[in-house]
Amino acid sequence: MRLRVDLLPHGNYPDVVLVVDVLRATTTAVQYLERGADALLLTATPEVAFALRESGAGILLGGERGGLPIPGFDFGNSPVEAAAQNFTGKTVVMNTTNGTGAAHVAAETGKHVLLAALTNAHAASRRARALATEEIAIVCAGTDGRVGLEDVYAAGVLSEYLLTMGGFSIDDGTRIALTVRRNAGNPIEVVSSSGHGQALAGLGLGDDVRHAAQVSTSTLVPVLDAVQETAGALRFVAG
Amino acid sequence: MRLRVDLLPHGNYPDVVLVVDVLRATTTAVQYLERGADALLLTATPEVAFALRESGAGILLGGERGGLPIPGFDFGNSPVEAAAQNFTGKTVVMNTTNGTGAAHVAAETGKHVLLAALTNAHAASRRARALATEEIAIVCAGTDGRVGLEDVYAAGVLSEYLLTMGGFSIDDGTRIALTVRRNAGNPIEVVSSSGHGQALAGLGLGDDVRHAAQVSTSTLVPVLDAVQETAGALRFVAG
Repeated sequence: MRLRVDLLPHGNYPDVVLVVDVLRATTTAVQYLERGADALLLTATPEVAFALRESGAGILLGGERGGLPIPGFDFGNSPVEAAAQNFTGKTVVMNTTNGTGAAHVAAETGKHVLLAALTNAHAASRRARALATEEIAIVCAGTDGRVGLEDVYAAGVLSEYLLTMGGFSIDDGTRIALTVRRNAGNPIEVVSSSGHGQALAGLGLGDDVRHAAQVSTSTLVPVLDAVQETAGALRFVAG
Repeated sequence: MRLRVDLLPHGNYPDVVLVVDVLRATTTAVQYLERGADALLLTATPEVAFALRESGAGILLGGERGGLPIPGFDFGNSPVEAAAQNFTGKTVVMNTTNGTGAAHVAAETGKHVLLAALTNAHAASRRARALATEEIAIVCAGTDGRVGLEDVYAAGVLSEYLLTMGGFSIDDGTRIALTVRRNAGNPIEVVSSSGHGQALAGLGLGDDVRHAAQVSTSTLVPVLDAVQETAGALRFVAG
């Protein structure tokens, strides 16, 4: 079994893919499911999100650009905001700067696509191990095409859990992620000191950063259930 | 002053760029200059390299695809092979899988483009510091679009030297590179254990891997001197 960490989305994933966007898409996705959402629809553009809201009842929109809510959306990609709501019976359409793009790259070829964050790290790694037959790829979303420290750290946490469960051949990305996880500090230090963590704190979103630095507080794993070809949307449900 | 490490080439470099491809393009480039070469021409394709050889005397071709010499080329992108030759009065045209591509991305916007390896790390970081007015970007070439441990390690070595020389604001890439440099092991361990290092050893090129793991053995820094627009070639000379 191979374990592979892509520090930025690369493509060509044959088997299980764990998509990581700690600040904040995958952390928020976990929280929507924690608060009862039936499903998440990840769209490539805000326009698709608006069209989906028109198409049925019980659909809410969450997303951001540059860290701020998208005008006309119901929520702003904030796990703390999500934690204060009840999404029972709702479908949340998500559109974010980096995380949804990474999920679409993963879905192009991945057999099983899961969303992973620090908050569901234990559950996501166990689920990945149970599904995998040849490779687990951990794909860091990054920020605007550049590597994010918080995602690499989370990839290291996931890698460490996976290596606990059995033997893997590992690649350079895994070696780098493990080195960061073992030596860069504790989760809140690392996530707060990341460029993206500092930018969010500057926008008054420090509570989201602290939420995202919690490790294995949720057992929910968003799992890709269907690709809605016409809408270009990925449908995730609690796996 | 900003210090930025891109774990893969990204673009938009405003000032000084250090291009790093430890295995083996930038290591070999340093060695060509050590052995007396007048200049290096980095081309985007082998075809351009062949055309350049036809255009004048004293031009030799060096390059590889998948680690092996390109048919019709004089040399195979090997620092050990280069060390055994005398290139006085010669211009070497280089075409390699990753390093030359990264240099072209750097040259699109960079004001000063330098080639850096472990072997010239001290000299390259000093030269970068002397030239920079706003930013030093260390750009890891990677391997086929994926991050290479050996390049990230070298970026950490360069970053540590630069931080010795003065204050910088640093980004996530720099934090990751410094963590790898300080915790992943000594140079020969790290370079040998990298995916690319193992692949080269498998091709019988372990001597090149050991050569590339030497730190600060050369004081020569290839500096971009001119962009030959018509040929799409970058001309580097000893800076």
